[in-house]
Amino acid sequence: MVGGGSDSLIGVVHRIAANMGDNFNLIGGAFSIDFKLAESFAAKLELDHTRVYKTIDDLIKSEHLLPENERMQVITVATPNFLHYSMSKQLLEAGFHVICEKPVTTTSEEAIELQQIAERRQAVFAVTHTYTGYPMVRQMKSMISEGMIGKIQKVDAQYYQGWINPVIHDPEERKKVWRLDPSKAGSSCCMGDIGVHAFNMVEYTTGLTIDSVLCDLNMLYDDNLLDVDGSSFLRLSNGSKGIIRASQIATAEENNLRIAVYGDKGGLKWEQENPNYLYHVIEGQPMQVYKPGNPYTSDFEKKSVKLPSGHPEGIFDAMGNIYNGVAAAIREEDYFDGAYPKIIDGVRGMRFIEAALKSNAKGQVWEEI
Amino acid sequence: MVGGGSDSLIGVVHRIAANMGDNFNLIGGAFSIDFKLAESFAAKLELDHTRVYKTIDDLIKSEHLLPENERMQVITVATPNFLHYSMSKQLLEAGFHVICEKPVTTTSEEAIELQQIAERRQAVFAVTHTYTGYPMVRQMKSMISEGMIGKIQKVDAQYYQGWINPVIHDPEERKKVWRLDPSKAGSSCCMGDIGVHAFNMVEYTTGLTIDSVLCDLNMLYDDNLLDVDGSSFLRLSNGSKGIIRASQIATAEENNLRIAVYGDKGGLKWEQENPNYLYHVIEGQPMQVYKPGNPYTSDFEKKSVKLPSGHPEGIFDAMGNIYNGVAAAIREEDYFDGAYPKIIDGVRGMRFIEAALKSNAKGQVWEEI
Amino acid sequence: MVGGGSDSLIGVVHRIAANMGDNFNLIGGAFSIDFKLAESFAAKLELDHTRVYKTIDDLIKSEHLLPENERMQVITVATPNFLHYSMSKQLLEAGFHVICEKPVTTTSEEAIELQQIAERRQAVFAVTHTYTGYPMVRQMKSMISEGMIGKIQKVDAQYYQGWINPVIHDPEERKKVWRLDPSKAGSSCCMGDIGVHAFNMVEYTTGLTIDSVLCDLNMLYDDNLLDVDGSSFLRLSNGSKGIIRASQIATAEENNLRIAVYGDKGGLKWEQENPNYLYHVIEGQPMQVYKPGNPYTSDFEKKSVKLPSGHPEGIFDAMGNIYNGVAAAIREEDYFDGAYPKIIDGVRGMRFIEAALKSNAKGQVWEEI
Amino acid sequence: MVGGGSDSLIGVVHRIAANMGDNFNLIGGAFSIDFKLAESFAAKLELDHTRVYKTIDDLIKSEHLLPENERMQVITVATPNFLHYSMSKQLLEAGFHVICEKPVTTTSEEAIELQQIAERRQAVFAVTHTYTGYPMVRQMKSMISEGMIGKIQKVDAQYYQGWINPVIHDPEERKKVWRLDPSKAGSSCCMGDIGVHAFNMVEYTTGLTIDSVLCDLNMLYDDNLLDVDGSSFLRLSNGSKGIIRASQIATAEENNLRIAVYGDKGGLKWEQENPNYLYHVIEGQPMQVYKPGNPYTSDFEKKSVKLPSGHPEGIFDAMGNIYNGVAAAIREEDYFDGAYPKIIDGVRGMRFIEAALKSNAKGQVWEEI
Repeated sequence: MVGGGSDSLIGVVHRIAANMGDNFNLIGGAFSIDFKLAESFAAKLELDHTRVYKTIDDLIKSEHLLPENERMQVITVATPNFLHYSMSKQLLEAGFHVICEKPVTTTSEEAIELQQIAERRQAVFAVTHTYTGYPMVRQMKSMISEGMIGKIQKVDAQYYQGWINPVIHDPEERKKVWRLDPSKAGSSCCMGDIGVHAFNMVEYTTGLTIDSVLCDLNMLYDDNLLDVDGSSFLRLSNGSKGIIRASQIATAEENNLRIAVYGDKGGLKWEQENPNYLYHVIEGQPMQVYKPGNPYTSDFEKKSVKLPSGHPEGIFDAMGNIYNGVAAAIREEDYFDGAYPKIIDGVRGMRFIEAALKSNAKGQVWEEI
Repeated sequence: MVGGGSDSLIGVVHRIAANMGDNFNLIGGAFSIDFKLAESFAAKLELDHTRVYKTIDDLIKSEHLLPENERMQVITVATPNFLHYSMSKQLLEAGFHVICEKPVTTTSEEAIELQQIAERRQAVFAVTHTYTGYPMVRQMKSMISEGMIGKIQKVDAQYYQGWINPVIHDPEERKKVWRLDPSKAGSSCCMGDIGVHAFNMVEYTTGLTIDSVLCDLNMLYDDNLLDVDGSSFLRLSNGSKGIIRASQIATAEENNLRIAVYGDKGGLKWEQENPNYLYHVIEGQPMQVYKPGNPYTSDFEKKSVKLPSGHPEGIFDAMGNIYNGVAAAIREEDYFDGAYPKIIDGVRGMRFIEAALKSNAKGQVWEEI
Repeated sequence: MVGGGSDSLIGVVHRIAANMGDNFNLIGGAFSIDFKLAESFAAKLELDHTRVYKTIDDLIKSEHLLPENERMQVITVATPNFLHYSMSKQLLEAGFHVICEKPVTTTSEEAIELQQIAERRQAVFAVTHTYTGYPMVRQMKSMISEGMIGKIQKVDAQYYQGWINPVIHDPEERKKVWRLDPSKAGSSCCMGDIGVHAFNMVEYTTGLTIDSVLCDLNMLYDDNLLDVDGSSFLRLSNGSKGIIRASQIATAEENNLRIAVYGDKGGLKWEQENPNYLYHVIEGQPMQVYKPGNPYTSDFEKKSVKLPSGHPEGIFDAMGNIYNGVAAAIREEDYFDGAYPKIIDGVRGMRFIEAALKSNAKGQVWEEI
Repeated sequence: MVGGGSDSLIGVVHRIAANMGDNFNLIGGAFSIDFKLAESFAAKLELDHTRVYKTIDDLIKSEHLLPENERMQVITVATPNFLHYSMSKQLLEAGFHVICEKPVTTTSEEAIELQQIAERRQAVFAVTHTYTGYPMVRQMKSMISEGMIGKIQKVDAQYYQGWINPVIHDPEERKKVWRLDPSKAGSSCCMGDIGVHAFNMVEYTTGLTIDSVLCDLNMLYDDNLLDVDGSSFLRLSNGSKGIIRASQIATAEENNLRIAVYGDKGGLKWEQENPNYLYHVIEGQPMQVYKPGNPYTSDFEKKSVKLPSGHPEGIFDAMGNIYNGVAAAIREEDYFDGAYPKIIDGVRGMRFIEAALKSNAKGQVWEEI
């Protein structure tokens, strides 16, 4: 792992998730630019201190000295956003498989470059669209691909949060938030951070691509440079239309990500904060409610739960499923399509963000992705 | 009542609602173009047969012969849509108060004309945006006007149905649906029928006006002339942004109207199919769930329920509250703002529909309302 | 109607419900022991003042003078509880059909007497177990009788309220509550008022009878003579077991009546405060959620809704369905079993209350019903 | 760990949970009576093969040869039920801290003996009432102990499952189920397996003890020796009454554990299958809904989540919190009351089961715990 040390929240998620499927153990890493912090962190975890590195260069050099079967197999990049691209690139080039936190890059060009390197090096390169790891999201994907809702004719995805509300209204306060500082956060706040998850959920569950968007962004205040809210009309590859809505000023919302997909036979609806329920509305019939671990679910879903039905799955379990997907890919097993989010998903996400910004900047016009 | 006889569903709603508050009794009307049907309908209801009329002209003439205190006070227009305007006009000019089904006209010009006549004749003229009669919608309006969620910064309203799905996919079938025939349904199907309810809910609950829209409509098939789905970006009068989403191809949805309004202190969320719950999310505090008939609700809400808390209210009760509002207005009582939807709401609705169509026809551009 | 005048809440319910199906109009009655109140109430409703009576004796005498086809057909008894028995008896003997508020009597002997009179006079005698009028309760009854959940093996009904909490803790306050005064409320508070509804729901939906109970009542304070909470174990006629739970000290609960019935194929669950959802859990399959007015419901359910699906039904609609059942019975139509609660249900309810009290008094032992 | 190898579901839960708080690593154990299986399991996990033992005796002997700071600290007992008591005893006597799966023993005498040994050896001895690890259960405990619902006056806990339904109706099938075989499962099926969880939840959240029970058990078939369903009336230590309901024939229910506690100020309600919502009903005020990781929760709750609000917690997270509690206890930190379930909870559970069986056997009479 690079980054993700001591007080890193996302580091915790990765450590736990990596361990969940008995596929990976944390061996070492370059956990912090403060090496003392990294060392004490590693000591707390009882890691072998010889595999705690000062820098990513040290890590690569030293690990390469080890016999191949003792080397770290996968390296998780959990550093601040601006380092994702360069570090992933370096690690891929050095022959490691990589799991990189989102956003994987700051431009689509960089993402495409990483995609090409990964292909060339035949490396597994996962991007953490974590929500794709939930069993019921996978069940949704299975059911749509099996035609259970028919031809898709309407898509609606939402990601509402309220976390920026407490800081956005005071000009001094909002200047202190790194997410609202273009030099640190890149070109987008709301679309880049959460809108892209909604985008990914649409493409992931439907198997369709979003071809163009018309986007209305909201900065709320004139002196605020980044979007804190925005919606996009969508054109999908099968000719259907849809909508994505994202907000960080939906006051008091937590992680209210939800998606509804309607076909000509029925629809499927899912909500992240209540992830163990999948609602299947059916033309002329009662709604059906799917839950994890039941006999009636898809093989992909069944492989994504660890216990019988009735045991709630959480966000750590979702990330764990992604690590399992990565493990299967490394082992070159014949596993499930969608078992982990790939760099192509990272590329598509970057293109969406860029198109959304362009659409809005031009005065809300259609922009191809 | 004009129209609303025998097998009319909406007639049932009006009869029951009119009666609910002990303000009105159905005395008579011109219930049907088939007078025999009208007579047997009236006989079934044990109405005085002398007040069952062949035409609206007969009705007006005969009622005018009666002493003023014996005349019908209010006349409900529940005829097919294309007659709403002309009949309402005639009745208003003849000195009656009028309750007209939605859509009140087919153009905003007509609606404005009715508004002017009603003002001139000092008549009460109600338009049945029935959902404004739900106790929890009124509670929402009260709480927003009292500042409980602070300054509004985000609005999102949805009205999803799936009823057109079974008929839209077959070219022969869809030609038989009057709602999809411009000569019968007017210029819009989805926006005109349900999008306008979502529009009304936004203006009703927030007290803001929607100044302009950018709308993306969906006809689904090239040979289908009217919209069956569509979304609008919004600009509201206080500078905030929002969105309205409506669909009749959200397969297997029934009447999934919902609204979420977020201010800088919190938000309020309500759903029509579960109308007795109002969700108040609050910055930094647990969500609160309001229910009808409790000590903690507003005076307006309290006046809109008939029983103590725990007795579910339905759609008939909502319409009953609107009739109560009309009764109070006729009695010139000092009642609550928003006690019944006025012709101005009908005017605003028509303008929204026209702007939405224009915005879409021009290629999804901003259009003022 | 006798009783139910002016400020009577239950009178409102009956007036509206009676009117809902276009079967009944309120013609007159003996609305109050204060005749002036009764007269002004009748004037407000624009009733014929010649049919506003001082007493029930006057009512019977005067109505009998009218030709049969002009007489009141059905008389609703909405007086205070202690008058239900004597008035119902008098009205039945006088040849009227009767709809009586619950509890219909204070002893099972009286209830049996009324049952016998009604049979002898061939009168329709309805008891207002209003919850049986909800469309989804009727759907539940239909599905169970059609065998959709198989052989019943477990029943659980709950009725939790909290309304006594604010008055129960102060010895002075609780003495003022008529419901806690045995001289006014009879022998039971919680079981008699709401436990009996849970009992009725079990017998209504399952078609089984409850043969014996073992009951644990709670008076909360030694000086309080009546139960404010209690549960019963059940033995049902098909050999299965079950439980009824009722409380008036479930603080802040409103009308939380719910029932779950499990058979060997699946189960059905319903909640009064959310009455338009019926949950069908099925062995090995996803849960199905039934809603009113859909093509997939039973004929009985379909006859119990007035509008297409998606229009929420409330408590008034439930009572309206009971009035429709009474109307069909008076017209001697071949209608649905369970279309209105009969005096036999009143008899069974009284027997349940008596058995529950006896079981508890003897120290929680089994008592036959 | 003893037991919990290869295909053991509960072993997975313990491994993941142990790891979650960075407190524990799985070092070794006696994973299986089939040593080859144990070895291949350990190899898969890349454990040091010198610490994979054939028997618990080997484990104790070999670990004792290691310096104290290298020895296993805690040993998790995840063997079949009948071994829990003897192995826990052996491990406690050998100076290890122990985490034992439920049921910890087959009689209360054995449980008391373990309690005494643990006290004597000053060992931490945890019993896996896993549900006490959910953040919202801990929030509930905090709120009740802080008096937020006032004096408790009513308790209702339910644990409904349907898993026995598919096997109970065929005499041959049900004989094959080990849980229904007294020689393997002990004296109770439903009460012993899940009723005891409901019992524990009541005592855990309220801080009260249940002093006596009157229990009605159901074997469903005469030739079935163990209970598959049952309810208990309760007498609690503060004089209040309550009820516990458990079933394994609530067809198609998964793990429907729920608890409601009502005090004189309000009530709290929680459901295991939707564990991230805690419902606080309040006398005269809107219901409040608590969710994990928010600023308004208790310190105990805050310490029981790993991420900010909006990230759903699951059953693994609950178990992880219990491991954290054990770690704190071993470190002799001043942590939270209720941070892990203790052997005293195991003792109380065994007493409950015994009292329930006795109460039922005597014909549903009160039995002290």
